[in-house]
Amino acid sequence: MGNSEKISVGIVGASGYGGVQLVRILIEHPQVEIVYLGGDSSAGKEYGDLYPHLRHRTPTKIESINLETIASRCDVVFLGLPNGLACNIAPSLIATGCKVLDLSADYRFQDLDLYTKWYKTEREDLETSANAVYGLPELYRKKIKNSNLIGCPGCYPTASLLALAPLLKQGLIDPNSIIIDAKSGTSGGGRQGKINLLLAEADSSLGAYGIAKHRHTPEIEQICSDLARSEVKLQFTPHLIPMPRGILSTVYGTLTDPGLVTDDLLTVYNAFYRNSAFVKVMGRGIYPQTKWACGTNLAYLGLEADPRTGRVIVVSAIDNLIKGQAGQAVQCLNLMMGWQEDLGLPTLSFYP
Amino acid sequence: MGNSEKISVGIVGASGYGGVQLVRILIEHPQVEIVYLGGDSSAGKEYGDLYPHLRHRTPTKIESINLETIASRCDVVFLGLPNGLACNIAPSLIATGCKVLDLSADYRFQDLDLYTKWYKTEREDLETSANAVYGLPELYRKKIKNSNLIGCPGCYPTASLLALAPLLKQGLIDPNSIIIDAKSGTSGGGRQGKINLLLAEADSSLGAYGIAKHRHTPEIEQICSDLARSEVKLQFTPHLIPMPRGILSTVYGTLTDPGLVTDDLLTVYNAFYRNSAFVKVMGRGIYPQTKWACGTNLAYLGLEADPRTGRVIVVSAIDNLIKGQAGQAVQCLNLMMGWQEDLGLPTLSFYP
Amino acid sequence: MGNSEKISVGIVGASGYGGVQLVRILIEHPQVEIVYLGGDSSAGKEYGDLYPHLRHRTPTKIESINLETIASRCDVVFLGLPNGLACNIAPSLIATGCKVLDLSADYRFQDLDLYTKWYKTEREDLETSANAVYGLPELYRKKIKNSNLIGCPGCYPTASLLALAPLLKQGLIDPNSIIIDAKSGTSGGGRQGKINLLLAEADSSLGAYGIAKHRHTPEIEQICSDLARSEVKLQFTPHLIPMPRGILSTVYGTLTDPGLVTDDLLTVYNAFYRNSAFVKVMGRGIYPQTKWACGTNLAYLGLEADPRTGRVIVVSAIDNLIKGQAGQAVQCLNLMMGWQEDLGLPTLSFYP
Amino acid sequence: MGNSEKISVGIVGASGYGGVQLVRILIEHPQVEIVYLGGDSSAGKEYGDLYPHLRHRTPTKIESINLETIASRCDVVFLGLPNGLACNIAPSLIATGCKVLDLSADYRFQDLDLYTKWYKTEREDLETSANAVYGLPELYRKKIKNSNLIGCPGCYPTASLLALAPLLKQGLIDPNSIIIDAKSGTSGGGRQGKINLLLAEADSSLGAYGIAKHRHTPEIEQICSDLARSEVKLQFTPHLIPMPRGILSTVYGTLTDPGLVTDDLLTVYNAFYRNSAFVKVMGRGIYPQTKWACGTNLAYLGLEADPRTGRVIVVSAIDNLIKGQAGQAVQCLNLMMGWQEDLGLPTLSFYP
Repeated sequence: MGNSEKISVGIVGASGYGGVQLVRILIEHPQVEIVYLGGDSSAGKEYGDLYPHLRHRTPTKIESINLETIASRCDVVFLGLPNGLACNIAPSLIATGCKVLDLSADYRFQDLDLYTKWYKTEREDLETSANAVYGLPELYRKKIKNSNLIGCPGCYPTASLLALAPLLKQGLIDPNSIIIDAKSGTSGGGRQGKINLLLAEADSSLGAYGIAKHRHTPEIEQICSDLARSEVKLQFTPHLIPMPRGILSTVYGTLTDPGLVTDDLLTVYNAFYRNSAFVKVMGRGIYPQTKWACGTNLAYLGLEADPRTGRVIVVSAIDNLIKGQAGQAVQCLNLMMGWQEDLGLPTLSFYP
Repeated sequence: MGNSEKISVGIVGASGYGGVQLVRILIEHPQVEIVYLGGDSSAGKEYGDLYPHLRHRTPTKIESINLETIASRCDVVFLGLPNGLACNIAPSLIATGCKVLDLSADYRFQDLDLYTKWYKTEREDLETSANAVYGLPELYRKKIKNSNLIGCPGCYPTASLLALAPLLKQGLIDPNSIIIDAKSGTSGGGRQGKINLLLAEADSSLGAYGIAKHRHTPEIEQICSDLARSEVKLQFTPHLIPMPRGILSTVYGTLTDPGLVTDDLLTVYNAFYRNSAFVKVMGRGIYPQTKWACGTNLAYLGLEADPRTGRVIVVSAIDNLIKGQAGQAVQCLNLMMGWQEDLGLPTLSFYP
Repeated sequence: MGNSEKISVGIVGASGYGGVQLVRILIEHPQVEIVYLGGDSSAGKEYGDLYPHLRHRTPTKIESINLETIASRCDVVFLGLPNGLACNIAPSLIATGCKVLDLSADYRFQDLDLYTKWYKTEREDLETSANAVYGLPELYRKKIKNSNLIGCPGCYPTASLLALAPLLKQGLIDPNSIIIDAKSGTSGGGRQGKINLLLAEADSSLGAYGIAKHRHTPEIEQICSDLARSEVKLQFTPHLIPMPRGILSTVYGTLTDPGLVTDDLLTVYNAFYRNSAFVKVMGRGIYPQTKWACGTNLAYLGLEADPRTGRVIVVSAIDNLIKGQAGQAVQCLNLMMGWQEDLGLPTLSFYP
Repeated sequence: MGNSEKISVGIVGASGYGGVQLVRILIEHPQVEIVYLGGDSSAGKEYGDLYPHLRHRTPTKIESINLETIASRCDVVFLGLPNGLACNIAPSLIATGCKVLDLSADYRFQDLDLYTKWYKTEREDLETSANAVYGLPELYRKKIKNSNLIGCPGCYPTASLLALAPLLKQGLIDPNSIIIDAKSGTSGGGRQGKINLLLAEADSSLGAYGIAKHRHTPEIEQICSDLARSEVKLQFTPHLIPMPRGILSTVYGTLTDPGLVTDDLLTVYNAFYRNSAFVKVMGRGIYPQTKWACGTNLAYLGLEADPRTGRVIVVSAIDNLIKGQAGQAVQCLNLMMGWQEDLGLPTLSFYP
């Protein structure tokens, strides 16, 4: 396929951390050409002014957000806007034939009342939303292939759901016993000048936040309920870790059959993810480090059954900005376009 | 009280991280004089060769470990040796009238079979061990006052038990529902040249270890069982965090009365710790950062009841080397000597 | 001396990093009582809302900045405001009999034209400024004792001047050969939400800034000129280091007598700082780590003469917020009040 | 070109940080197949046991170091051994027709007496050494193309020489005025369990080491002398920075023509590096961050002329393990094989 056959891609909200990952990945994607970078406060700037290290590869300027421009120029648009904005522009983009991948929470929920309850935003795009597909390829590969609107998962949900899916799908744990203790690097807070994200504050320290009320809770519960075929309520506690990127999700569940041992569960996980090139199930006794996943679209899983307590503990490690955000969106794009699922996506981190 | 009335203190195992905290704290303790620093591989060195920043305050040399020397010179001895060594020397030190505070696991267990099962060491000092007191002053203040042998708690148990004690003591949670997801800075691994503790490996990364088999599990269970007046089995998962010091313990339990709200529990906690100067229960919605506790003997607690799940989540933050080790040992010493409990112990961290 | 004899101290600009160090140190200072905390945007808040870890020791509210209130209540005032504001309020405070210690650049310059050139602010308080003393006790101890207005040094100048003073005072280096390559933790940038100070941006990275134009250059040059008794122009390059606090200043100078060896210079330094309790000159071959100084008012110096190049290299390490700011201000206060110079000032860091 | 036409490559010393970078890069290099991984203490292990995150891409075992095996199997060998070992095996490998790229110091010196003086090792491979080429492609591209033995530069020399070369080549600075203040992440110390490289020790801290005696000094001087066509003696001071990877070299020189301004020098640098795809000269007022270069083979340069002092300050940022080691070696391989110079080498970092 020659250069002229590349598809034209736009990124709205290109200046944030999600945006720069998309730019970074798409620059090297063989089937894609970035034809539009849109921003609000950054409109008019050279992209290389925001990220000087990319200047040699990104001659493009950031433009203001104009739907007609986007629709006329782009086959596919990634939306990296704050929650509550994509739902205003996705319907008209889709109406013009654009495929849309939204990185916000707007198209992650099948039940918009649930969305409104947690995100405090009324919605009017009911029809559009009903056609959106939750962009976790390991669970919804087929639907994603046939969709033109993807609600890309949050970073915590991605790490947590990949850890939980085999257990819930096979009915191996009590769905009401789930506790997710998640840990994220500070880039999850975005490229904003918040005091608590300053190196001086966040370095050499550690704390929980949003206990019992983080917005990723209903998102995780929705997919877990779908997997378990019954309503799931679970505990989700995020923590801020003194490192730029990476998420580790430590997931606890009570085994329905306490006789299951670690090797049994590893067999289940290996089978479940046999066709998922980005999920790596580690061998017995090996637990992942987040750094293994950094700069890649991989999710590393490790697990242990505890015969003393009858629980299973699963640990999953991802790069919150790649598999947890931009990389997974590109993985969805690959599926939507009928390309190989891992096209243009990194699978080798630099270590240490 | 004049200088001559200070008690004479020795530290065996002075070169490690626990040792240097003890040295640091005791230098400024008004009632104590360090008369002996003992070490094995470091014997013969100036203390200031190991820790040049302390050279101006520690003229003392490290001596080889000789029980007669220690007994003849010291009123009190802190033992900071690897597990399985203190039990060989504590009995004879006590026999000569020394008070002993052991920082290893050797004197933490009432049931020595349990110790042997997890630490793979047979024990013969049954009588000595039977007289040892678990050195967590917030729970065992009276016993510590009357003891001459303290088994100082591990760092994870300290953080975890302070978070759990009010709940278990008052029967507010199902004792078999407890999950402890703990996070520690890398100094917990000691001053040893381990590859996984190198900055190049551990920085910007995060992982779990010892899942379902960490040795602090039975120690925590023992005290929880004592508090709950029934045998407790719990889940304990430690994680390594890219920071030098600090522990955050995130503790989950299912409320026996799901109608309890956060304010109820804060009332319980404030009452429970009313006379414990080192435990700070934070107000509603405030969760501690480990850095708040660094360089102090404080434990900060925050909590939240979750009406959706019927669980309580408690977060506790300590400095693993102070309240989690050396500071707590000095707190015990203060009690044993009849001094004010907080004498010579820091309660103000530097921030940021 | 009883409580009633303590002096009354106010802090204007108490919410920033300099302010919280002052609060932290003065809480434990035996001769001082904090009677006023002033702020602008933080006025009306409890201090413990800004810094929850200090809530148990700081019942005080932050008040708005009112000169009459301050003057009526305080014997001594620390000013921790942005550059260009202290010069508006110090004159009237002094007129009412307050002693003033200013942490900004306003009273560091004898030549106000130089100040105006680098700080772009015209000055009218010529008389007040003429009476100000540069608050580096190791160089200007006597003047500080007799002053009621101190211009406290910048963090970089403190580290750099302590490294240079013995060389310049004794004429041991060519004053025009001086190069200062300085490295600072990010707290030096203040408690402001700047993108480049986010952990996500600054961690695991390193860069220079303000090359050939940082405002600390003329401040260092002024004192160096005073020491050398001739005009000095030097090179100063600051760098941002991925750590919260600490400054390392690596200073280069060409020896006027290339025959001087390291031991000669160590002798000079030890003599020069013999009566300066906070300056620690390390032995041959020992170079300081910034962490040694963290949480203390100490400055650690190490040095090396290089016979190959005829240069001397001096390395100095301080805590930028203590010896580089708040601690040094308290050291000046001690001198102004006729107290022991090290009263209430920490000299032992926690390590690691 | 089909798979069968790939060249066969071996890596001796594959278990260290240099080794794992080579493995990482060569896995994705389109013209290379890794056919041998050799190690000493790691011989017999699966590579994925050492680096579990690479298990899915490295089925190869580490073998013991056997010259006949290597020679029979490999077209090209990378040697990543401690200094003083490559000189024992390179001659026989070359005799069998292997191309050798040595990552140690053994083949970096034209004057072996200089090597012996600094590395305390006598040499007998005079003829082999005489044919070695210093593997800095930006300076010695032609020689590298025609060589079969490359002495790959040290990490500090790479960063420093790229900063200095245009100045020395054009005679723009006084060669005896050069001061290099260099800063490195801790991976530069290798994958060894050294106390000073522990996260607990090195994090949140900063210090200089090897002042006036670091072994990279004569290596830098040798190439500088070549560029300046006169003997150069310079000052080199390395520092350890609390981050895993990256080097920043801050270089000072006195301009021979003090009338030169920053723009003049930027013009010189842009011309000098016009054909060097991996060197990025930043625009006026932009100074590089090491993180920009991490995970890439790029060197970012920024500079400033200081009219006040008559000096030029150049800052260069590289990834110490890529452009400073393994990536540069692959760049040399590309030249030696007549391939495109940037084949298989990453030029886009992930940020933040």
